[in-house]
Amino acid sequence: MYDIVIIGGGAAGLSAAIYAGRSAMRTLVVEGTSLGGQVNLTYEVDNYPGFFDNPAGADLSENMKKHAAKFGTEFTTETVKSIVDFDQDIKTVVTRRNAYDTRAIIFATGANPRKLGVEGEDRFYGMGVSYCATCDGAFFKGQVTAVVGGGNTAFEDALYLARFCSKVYLIHRSENYRAAASLVGKAKADPKIELLTNRTVEQIIGDTTVKELRIKNVLDNTAETIACSGVFIAVGRIPETALAGKYVHLTRQGFIQTDRAMRTNVPGIFAAGDVRDTPLRQIVTAAADGAVAATSAIYYINELEG
Amino acid sequence: MYDIVIIGGGAAGLSAAIYAGRSAMRTLVVEGTSLGGQVNLTYEVDNYPGFFDNPAGADLSENMKKHAAKFGTEFTTETVKSIVDFDQDIKTVVTRRNAYDTRAIIFATGANPRKLGVEGEDRFYGMGVSYCATCDGAFFKGQVTAVVGGGNTAFEDALYLARFCSKVYLIHRSENYRAAASLVGKAKADPKIELLTNRTVEQIIGDTTVKELRIKNVLDNTAETIACSGVFIAVGRIPETALAGKYVHLTRQGFIQTDRAMRTNVPGIFAAGDVRDTPLRQIVTAAADGAVAATSAIYYINELEG
Repeated sequence: MYDIVIIGGGAAGLSAAIYAGRSAMRTLVVEGTSLGGQVNLTYEVDNYPGFFDNPAGADLSENMKKHAAKFGTEFTTETVKSIVDFDQDIKTVVTRRNAYDTRAIIFATGANPRKLGVEGEDRFYGMGVSYCATCDGAFFKGQVTAVVGGGNTAFEDALYLARFCSKVYLIHRSENYRAAASLVGKAKADPKIELLTNRTVEQIIGDTTVKELRIKNVLDNTAETIACSGVFIAVGRIPETALAGKYVHLTRQGFIQTDRAMRTNVPGIFAAGDVRDTPLRQIVTAAADGAVAATSAIYYINELEG
Repeated sequence: MYDIVIIGGGAAGLSAAIYAGRSAMRTLVVEGTSLGGQVNLTYEVDNYPGFFDNPAGADLSENMKKHAAKFGTEFTTETVKSIVDFDQDIKTVVTRRNAYDTRAIIFATGANPRKLGVEGEDRFYGMGVSYCATCDGAFFKGQVTAVVGGGNTAFEDALYLARFCSKVYLIHRSENYRAAASLVGKAKADPKIELLTNRTVEQIIGDTTVKELRIKNVLDNTAETIACSGVFIAVGRIPETALAGKYVHLTRQGFIQTDRAMRTNVPGIFAAGDVRDTPLRQIVTAAADGAVAATSAIYYINELEG
């Protein structure tokens, strides 16, 4: 019998494990297949406060795992199939081969960026292709970059990058934007931002890093090539909620809805990190979510027992 | 002219500076007198995710400051006297000798634990005296501890400690508790928790670490001594809002009210860390708040200009 089962082994899950383990909770992290989460895929981490010397994402992730293991957290690599008795005091997390009884569950399953699905996108990931301007924009000071998308995030990214990049293309497949009109107005007024409408990215081209984008005009099917060293893809995020969505409330965008104590609508089920509805998705915000979720789970368990 | 002036140099302020500086915002941290905030006073930090080898608080604080300085943040040690034009697009942060024009302000002034004001309290701080069970409880596994207070935090701390301490005294000056009845019921039912009512702590006694508490029965003025190695003082927190309270909305408890994007009720003024109304006060939550506040400030500034 576990006190807390954490589903997901990224920054949110590992931080929750640190807080749970330190409090002598018997804690299991079910890591699934994407070990270490988004952090693990990050080439270098420039903005996790305190690590000023740019650790590799994999190293930071490993440090967090060591940190959790130090407090007795157990780990298993399995895919959770279902949760039995999710609304009872004792819940059962079921994988293909095991069933883990637990008092509390923390969903920390993360979210993946939506991809364009074009040639060069995977190859140049971390070498000019990014899904997070706040994370990676600073590496492109004084350079030409492009943002792909038409929503608020794409426009906020373009305005953000325009402060320190020499030029920012904003590429969108139509001429209608989902973004707020105020953001569109600001981008149009910014001399560094060039709006390319009715265009799709066909190919990302480079040698070791990105050099060019091949874009197509969807109205007349003509193609052109623009030079840039960074491309920020802002076409949405897909939260990993196929499992959680069966048991707890999601937002319309599919993220897990929590209160500020990371409680879902189901007593004893909590959520933390990129999978929840949150205004910013960074390593440090995921780690903070994990700390809050674990603390709330501990309070919940302490009140449950008697 | 600054883009962002951050008032406070603890984890929240420094993290905000990292995020602001990385985004090429001209950023000033006004540190005031409590350099480095609560982190700096922490003997060893056991639960900042990723730092698994227990750095000294002062070292973690120094690392965060280096991290912020790396991105061009400026620092000054001054006390802010007032904010002129706090509700205008350009605000002025006024100290005794200087006036700093800025587009955005982040309050990260922190909160201090309320002290008992008894002999031994300061001397044994970090050596058995703690104001945070979540932070320091784990150092007292298998030992006898005491919690002082009668509110929800005191009871949550006692229940938390009782999971791994051998015994927990809960000392309160009256027999009426402000804590929720459910928490009081759980504590009464816990065989490890002994409720000492109508008692005040008179003195904290030890050699290099805490050994005993001298407590007084306020009904009959008799005194007794109890042996314990840790005392957790949970009699409230005093947010540093003497300045902020003149300009932004506070909660009834005196903390700065923000939305989840760390916006106060005044456009261009944000808050982060222990000073704001938040469910958990840890280094990692303060750092996350700083990241969110800076990102919100950047979006605000990008929309302000044109």
